[in-house]
Amino acid sequence: MEHSLEFLGCTIRNLSEDDFRKGFNELMTVLDTEAQLDEEGFIEYCSNIRKMPDEYMHIVAEETLSGRIVASASVMIERKYLRTGGKVGHLEDLIVNPSFRKQGLGKKILDILITRAREKGCYKVIISAVHDSSEYFEKNGFKKKGLNMKILLTQ
Amino acid sequence: MEHSLEFLGCTIRNLSEDDFRKGFNELMTVLDTEAQLDEEGFIEYCSNIRKMPDEYMHIVAEETLSGRIVASASVMIERKYLRTGGKVGHLEDLIVNPSFRKQGLGKKILDILITRAREKGCYKVIISAVHDSSEYFEKNGFKKKGLNMKILLTQ
Repeated sequence: MEHSLEFLGCTIRNLSEDDFRKGFNELMTVLDTEAQLDEEGFIEYCSNIRKMPDEYMHIVAEETLSGRIVASASVMIERKYLRTGGKVGHLEDLIVNPSFRKQGLGKKILDILITRAREKGCYKVIISAVHDSSEYFEKNGFKKKGLNMKILLTQ
Repeated sequence: MEHSLEFLGCTIRNLSEDDFRKGFNELMTVLDTEAQLDEEGFIEYCSNIRKMPDEYMHIVAEETLSGRIVASASVMIERKYLRTGGKVGHLEDLIVNPSFRKQGLGKKILDILITRAREKGCYKVIISAVHDSSEYFEKNGFKKKGLNMKILLTQ
């Protein structure tokens, strides 16, 4: 998706440095109320992922009228040795502003990211579904495949 | 781990171009019996991950006496916006030659990768545990956290 796409009064496009001032951080606090990045950190994040277009895709939906960011998701692409050097898309942090839910915006973002992952050669896209989100992803074509596990690291 | 480390008659070190001729592919077929990479593809894989030392770590264990690769695992590091620009290590494809299991080699490799992920600033390491491996990872300090889900992509 080099170009933007209009959907339900929103522009869906790649994340941009301006989005911090368009409420990106406020949207993120729905997923994580803890400390977020400041604008400088956000711009560094944008810059880092832009340097790796074959590894990261991050898209957002901006409500056209208000100019506010109302949805966001990213895919990181893993290069494997297995599967003949296969690529796997890791879908991360899909979030839709609660006022914009149940209208297909999340599904649209999923579809766009899955299409882009396919174009980049991924043979699958995986997600770690927490917060009772598995039903949502099942409705959107994902199938359960094992457990996700984690170990927290102290610095 | 810039240097190698000796453990139970094995040298644990970063993946190297020579490893294709040391049985790396044969080890991988334990996880995936389908088509693997040829030597050229393997060298390209090595080259790609070496270009991204902040994103990929791939280590192997070589049995010192036989010069054969008997274990392998990798971690890919994801840069998040959340968690104040936090980093997450994705542990992938831990595999130990069946003849070398139950001696602590897998745990040693896990420990090395987790230590390196911490050094690179990760606040957690996650895995997708399939093939009844969750008990193994629980014994090694991982906790269950949601489901893994996938969608297969047709090209």
